[in-house]
Amino acid sequence: MKKIHETIAMIHPLDASLMQQAQDRLDSLTKPQGSLGRLESLAKQIVGISGTLRPSLQNKVIVTVAADHGVVSEGVSAFPQEVTPQMVYNFLRGGAAINVLARHVGAQVVICDAGVASDLTPHPELIVKKVAYGTKNMAHGPAMTDHEAIKAVTAGIEIVETLVRQGVNIIGTGDMGIGNTTASSAIVAVITGTPVEQVTGRGTGIDDGTLSHKVAVIQKSIAVNKPDRLNGMDVLRKVGGFEIGALAGVFLAAAAHRIPVVIDGFISGAAALIAAAIEPKVKEYMLPSHCSVEQGHRITLNYLGLKPLFDFDMRLGEGTGAALGIGIAEAGIKIINEMATFKDAGVSEKSA
Amino acid sequence: MKKIHETIAMIHPLDASLMQQAQDRLDSLTKPQGSLGRLESLAKQIVGISGTLRPSLQNKVIVTVAADHGVVSEGVSAFPQEVTPQMVYNFLRGGAAINVLARHVGAQVVICDAGVASDLTPHPELIVKKVAYGTKNMAHGPAMTDHEAIKAVTAGIEIVETLVRQGVNIIGTGDMGIGNTTASSAIVAVITGTPVEQVTGRGTGIDDGTLSHKVAVIQKSIAVNKPDRLNGMDVLRKVGGFEIGALAGVFLAAAAHRIPVVIDGFISGAAALIAAAIEPKVKEYMLPSHCSVEQGHRITLNYLGLKPLFDFDMRLGEGTGAALGIGIAEAGIKIINEMATFKDAGVSEKSA
Repeated sequence: MKKIHETIAMIHPLDASLMQQAQDRLDSLTKPQGSLGRLESLAKQIVGISGTLRPSLQNKVIVTVAADHGVVSEGVSAFPQEVTPQMVYNFLRGGAAINVLARHVGAQVVICDAGVASDLTPHPELIVKKVAYGTKNMAHGPAMTDHEAIKAVTAGIEIVETLVRQGVNIIGTGDMGIGNTTASSAIVAVITGTPVEQVTGRGTGIDDGTLSHKVAVIQKSIAVNKPDRLNGMDVLRKVGGFEIGALAGVFLAAAAHRIPVVIDGFISGAAALIAAAIEPKVKEYMLPSHCSVEQGHRITLNYLGLKPLFDFDMRLGEGTGAALGIGIAEAGIKIINEMATFKDAGVSEKSA
Repeated sequence: MKKIHETIAMIHPLDASLMQQAQDRLDSLTKPQGSLGRLESLAKQIVGISGTLRPSLQNKVIVTVAADHGVVSEGVSAFPQEVTPQMVYNFLRGGAAINVLARHVGAQVVICDAGVASDLTPHPELIVKKVAYGTKNMAHGPAMTDHEAIKAVTAGIEIVETLVRQGVNIIGTGDMGIGNTTASSAIVAVITGTPVEQVTGRGTGIDDGTLSHKVAVIQKSIAVNKPDRLNGMDVLRKVGGFEIGALAGVFLAAAAHRIPVVIDGFISGAAALIAAAIEPKVKEYMLPSHCSVEQGHRITLNYLGLKPLFDFDMRLGEGTGAALGIGIAEAGIKIINEMATFKDAGVSEKSA
């Protein structure tokens, strides 16, 4: 827990004075004031996060964390558990959607095994931080022990610390784990205080009957475990997952190191809720990307005070939404870095 | 008019059989079916447009057309008319928002003078297709003659023909012209049959009093000219602009040459309405980008049957929204071109 406490202690509010300077610069550029809308507010936020008036987003990384979930034995997912390691290999070969979209925005993908239920073939690009071989079935008791929850969050912190040493400028979160929309729905229901049926969706594509069953399993898991909604570590331990814990650590450590962090979809959103329950100031360092088809995601973003940038009816995870979000954030930063001012360009300003 | 008729004759419906093949391929990729939402539908549409199952979007171009508007003498804009040429020079020097965002998505910017009210200093990258030194004041009569309307649309067609010879794969539209939201509001009101006050916004940032006056000027222009809403060339001539006519030509020629064309904001939307009034099949070749702050833009996109990809509270024009839209369209194309299939990757498919 020491590493987690040290990380939290490093999280400070954004630099308001630099953000005002960013606003002044945005208002001096050759465009009607405010006419680039959210690109401008993203740029201003990133200035405040990074503590520099001309931040670079050259070094972009998607952190995609994989883990398995004991609750799949309840029959809550459309895909078998063997898909988790299969998709990790697909990530490492560069054939998955996240590889394609990360390349598109010039981001590197870092893959971490935080708790896949089988031993993965070693690969130079696979970071192994395996907490256990999948969580326990939360319908019968806590998904993990106290120690495992700490280990999962610490794993995410350590990944970010390594990336910071390598000069990362912006991080996007991503996930892979059969069953993880079930854990995420439980987290979102508990932390936001929303009825389970309102935050539970079809995941990778279950039918109506399986959806009702999934809702019942989540309700049972919450009833059995009674997580304390104000205690992020307790929620993680009882109804979370190892990839979700690691991503919560990614959010906390990104904030500690003044790195903007883009939330992907529903699973990343659940991890963001855990991080914000642990330390609310982390929210200022979060950038939204899309609004997922998973119905709990909008509720999650509302709770975090974030408005999604776009809604493309996506529901894949892996970091796919975060990758596109990083591309948009970088567009905002280029506006503040590269545009000419009215003065430089000799363009007349607004009359009156 | 011959060139316009020849262009229209070349516009055919999309290739439905190839689009089905694109759907089959999308469904074979390592992701739950449909889980990339609009990235998948964009990819499918671009396959149908281009007539190839693996289209490249390597060669991306934003066509930004500038012109002036006689109606500015009514006092409808926050910026003086001298800003039109000043911004053209800013485009040519690479300091405007469109330059920054086009570079961000790897697109070239082509700048065309279709009717700026002054002689511009020649520049190797400035295409001069000047129809006249600005339109006439539409509050007192037609904005342009029949011949000028034809010349404007033909200018846009010629630009696309040159780009096609250079191997363009996707085009985004853009505009610059002080006063052009006034002309665009008139076009949108006439073609969609919507009251003027519902399609008239603040442009570059006018106050309440000027907004009421702008509405009155547009109402008067429509009353004086009585444009025929079913006749695109008539609407263009009476209440349009040279850049709007040229962009209508860009839409028509892009469709004729099977090039996807991304609509920017409100002015480009008005041009798209003109093009669709001339030849409705052109709509299948249009891709939306953002929903502008200009309130008539959502009405325009609805009328065209298009759902915006994102809403960033932007209201700048120049092609800035189209540039970001091109980046998203390219992400969709890379998904269909670069992702591994379940078979290739050895990933198990959905059970049952």
